Amino acid sequence: MSPSAVSSTPSPGVQASELTASAVAQKIGASANLQPLDASKLIFTKTQTPMAVPEPGDPIIATSSQCTDHMITAVWDSTVGWHAPKLQPYGNLSLPPTASVLHYATECFEGMKMYRGYDGKLRLFRPDANCKRMLVSATRISLPAFDPSELEKLIKAMIAIDGPKWLPKSRPGTSLYLRPTMIGSAGALGVSTPKEATLFVISTFMPNLSKPKGLRLLASQNGIRAWPGGFGYAKVGANYGPSLMANGEAISRGYDQVLWLLNGMVTEAGASNFFVVWRTREGVIQLVTAPLEDKIILDGVTRRSILQLARERLTIEVVERAYTMDEIVDAIKEKRMIEAFAAGTAYFVCPVSAINYRDQDWQIPMNQGDSGDYAALIKSWLMNIMYGRDEHEWGVVVEENEEL
Amino acid sequence: MSPSAVSSTPSPGVQASELTASAVAQKIGASANLQPLDASKLIFTKTQTPMAVPEPGDPIIATSSQCTDHMITAVWDSTVGWHAPKLQPYGNLSLPPTASVLHYATECFEGMKMYRGYDGKLRLFRPDANCKRMLVSATRISLPAFDPSELEKLIKAMIAIDGPKWLPKSRPGTSLYLRPTMIGSAGALGVSTPKEATLFVISTFMPNLSKPKGLRLLASQNGIRAWPGGFGYAKVGANYGPSLMANGEAISRGYDQVLWLLNGMVTEAGASNFFVVWRTREGVIQLVTAPLEDKIILDGVTRRSILQLARERLTIEVVERAYTMDEIVDAIKEKRMIEAFAAGTAYFVCPVSAINYRDQDWQIPMNQGDSGDYAALIKSWLMNIMYGRDEHEWGVVVEENEEL
Repeated sequence: MSPSAVSSTPSPGVQASELTASAVAQKIGASANLQPLDASKLIFTKTQTPMAVPEPGDPIIATSSQCTDHMITAVWDSTVGWHAPKLQPYGNLSLPPTASVLHYATECFEGMKMYRGYDGKLRLFRPDANCKRMLVSATRISLPAFDPSELEKLIKAMIAIDGPKWLPKSRPGTSLYLRPTMIGSAGALGVSTPKEATLFVISTFMPNLSKPKGLRLLASQNGIRAWPGGFGYAKVGANYGPSLMANGEAISRGYDQVLWLLNGMVTEAGASNFFVVWRTREGVIQLVTAPLEDKIILDGVTRRSILQLARERLTIEVVERAYTMDEIVDAIKEKRMIEAFAAGTAYFVCPVSAINYRDQDWQIPMNQGDSGDYAALIKSWLMNIMYGRDEHEWGVVVEENEEL
Repeated sequence: MSPSAVSSTPSPGVQASELTASAVAQKIGASANLQPLDASKLIFTKTQTPMAVPEPGDPIIATSSQCTDHMITAVWDSTVGWHAPKLQPYGNLSLPPTASVLHYATECFEGMKMYRGYDGKLRLFRPDANCKRMLVSATRISLPAFDPSELEKLIKAMIAIDGPKWLPKSRPGTSLYLRPTMIGSAGALGVSTPKEATLFVISTFMPNLSKPKGLRLLASQNGIRAWPGGFGYAKVGANYGPSLMANGEAISRGYDQVLWLLNGMVTEAGASNFFVVWRTREGVIQLVTAPLEDKIILDGVTRRSILQLARERLTIEVVERAYTMDEIVDAIKEKRMIEAFAAGTAYFVCPVSAINYRDQDWQIPMNQGDSGDYAALIKSWLMNIMYGRDEHEWGVVVEENEEL
């Protein structure tokens, strides 16, 4: 067993997968005598060794390790609160071997992208949703609170600097991945709430993860990703490392990802939300995905956006409910399955072509060859918002600082 | 959602909470064309800035952050395997912000101690058990395999150097905590098996965690530590950070730790194994603890040692089975509860005086005032082995290098 300090301050009790404004205010107010995260205090140090932007096709892109010139960092400690954030040259972090994050997984993150629009503008997609979820995740993993709108300002400050160079106007329709992260950086081996934390934001190139032949999923048989009373709804590291073993098994058997089941119910595909479109036995076409109430699955921003657009623009039924793999098999057997897809920031909207369940492959229709109709339609709606073809409140234009 | 590289190598499939020699050989053989971890290649660099050893009572001891002069490090990568390990001055680690461990909790560790015996000798307690469990944990979290006996040699090499100074012969009956750790240090944001890992071993001072009035536990009501098909049996970071929120709530309500329940069954106390001694309704005295089969609880070295000594030396029944909090309450109501204790490396054998269950405090007898009889007896047996009063194969003497 490990030691556990008994003198630590209790962690805040907010667990909701979506925070209301009042809950945020309450959380931040709870540490009223500590300095809040304040983007207006940003200290800017420009890199003296700018890096080269890789050309499309450069093999470094596939490594997901090429970052841009700068990063945001902000340190919190339990006596001062948030110190002034910094925009500084990208570089390694120096951590004591006793740092909480290296032992106890006191870490959470967000996945988002910046998009270079066809109109030349740089956009984020619903950054407020990511920043609020980051607070939910930080709270769940006993890391400090912050005002999500301050995090959003810091993200914008960084991409205002790195966007013009790294996502140039000459490459409309492309994106860069953004990774806000918070870690427990206090050096102390007691199992307790970290007394120091470091927030950082980096931006990387990502390989194209789309699957022209559709994702092939291996339904989990023994392993589970998350459970009631756990932390499946939070974007914390503890949901990812433990999933790699099952993911490795899926890949070794010729599949792309695990379709995570819990007591036979379908939850997530890999680290993405999962949707099916089927016809009920009564003939009603439904878009179905797992619900948020039991806190098993991530409250995906793409998931939420798909549900809202489908409700606004489609005439099919949109249903959030617990459903089972057996229901999917029945729909396939009875030729009622229309399509299925995974959805999230990195994989975006990714059609699913097959699911292996109890050692049997079940084919899912993709009636456009590389996609089903609904996935293709929804994907186009989202891309039009992200890349500025449709004006929409979810596509947030970021002012760029091209002087620097 | 997060990206997930589909080209990663599958992680090995060993999941057993105890590895047989053949399983270890198979795991290491699986990467036959990679260099194995080899303690005989150790490269030694002595510190040029030795630190002062804190006196007993120095406040730094309570911070669990004062390490000794040296640390072991060893880097593995997916093309070479294990590079030559180093014994080097204690210092910070430099990690890219994209390092797997900071995002995906690809981390595992061990907790052990070195003991300065009353006979002047330095001992480890069953280090082979910790090193084997470290391999189990590394496998579960998709970190590379190694021969546990090589890790044991590295640990011994470090304490041979730091033991004489940091745990001097003038302080018999004291101990220092040892923390072997492995992290995914590869800088790449794809959710995949890390292509680089770093093993390190550090040693720290720990505050005395004993509770003269006994541990007061708060039984979990909604939160759950581990689940069948999960990873509760492995010493991975993902079991610790998510528990801090409930632990903080317990402390804020005046308790020391959470007693983790799963469907009403008793699993662990904080990050320790949990034991009760009761009289059955038939009048039989039993020592009871949760079983390992369902892989919910950690296969504690202290747990395993207590069970074995109790079976060898006591006449009471020793039972590993699933049991419920309701059974504990019944035993207390019917005055059949004799005592309870938590057990692990850091808390050692720690008597429990109270459990809050469904908002009601249930008192547990401690008939020696600060302990029950069985906990006191078992603790004395273990201490006699650790501190060399009893010659026993579990107390492994480490040769010290007092020249350096």
